[in-house]
Amino acid sequence: MITEIALLKIRDQQSEAFETAFSEAQKIIANMKGYKYHELQKCIEEEDKYLLLVQWQTLEHHTEGFRKSNEYQEWKKLLHHFYDPFPTVEHYKKVF
Amino acid sequence: MITEIALLKIRDQQSEAFETAFSEAQKIIANMKGYKYHELQKCIEEEDKYLLLVQWQTLEHHTEGFRKSNEYQEWKKLLHHFYDPFPTVEHYKKVF
Repeated sequence: MITEIALLKIRDQQSEAFETAFSEAQKIIANMKGYKYHELQKCIEEEDKYLLLVQWQTLEHHTEGFRKSNEYQEWKKLLHHFYDPFPTVEHYKKVF
Repeated sequence: MITEIALLKIRDQQSEAFETAFSEAQKIIANMKGYKYHELQKCIEEEDKYLLLVQWQTLEHHTEGFRKSNEYQEWKKLLHHFYDPFPTVEHYKKVF
């Protein structure tokens, strides 16, 4: 099991629209092979900042399965225009 | 419920010692008032990088209760010398 982590900075005044779009987009990942769980968390200290965590069965379920799918094109269309800058995505493995 | 998030960069070649120290230090937070859950995750793409998530009942359980406690002094002693640079800690609230 691995966790995909992305810190998302949303364009000024777009957080509400982003959350609405995300409520749709989350249905896309939740149906992908190897998907386990996700959370979207909003930062308390900084405006328009979010943390996305997605748990996948393996790294490849995210990097190969999801990112090379038609569903990813839908995900992109719904969400990518909200990001500024475009986020760095990293993967983590639980230690404790 | 809020989540404390810290991206931790560990000094070169110190990750193993950090994990050993953390296995002790985690007992400290787990006994604090308002503590709910924690995870330490290790980055796959970048050497010596970790993500710490701690769930607290309220923001103040972390910022007031824990940070102003004697137990925090123990936590500091065990962990802070591993960090370079010293991490920024932020708090998040779940949206989805």
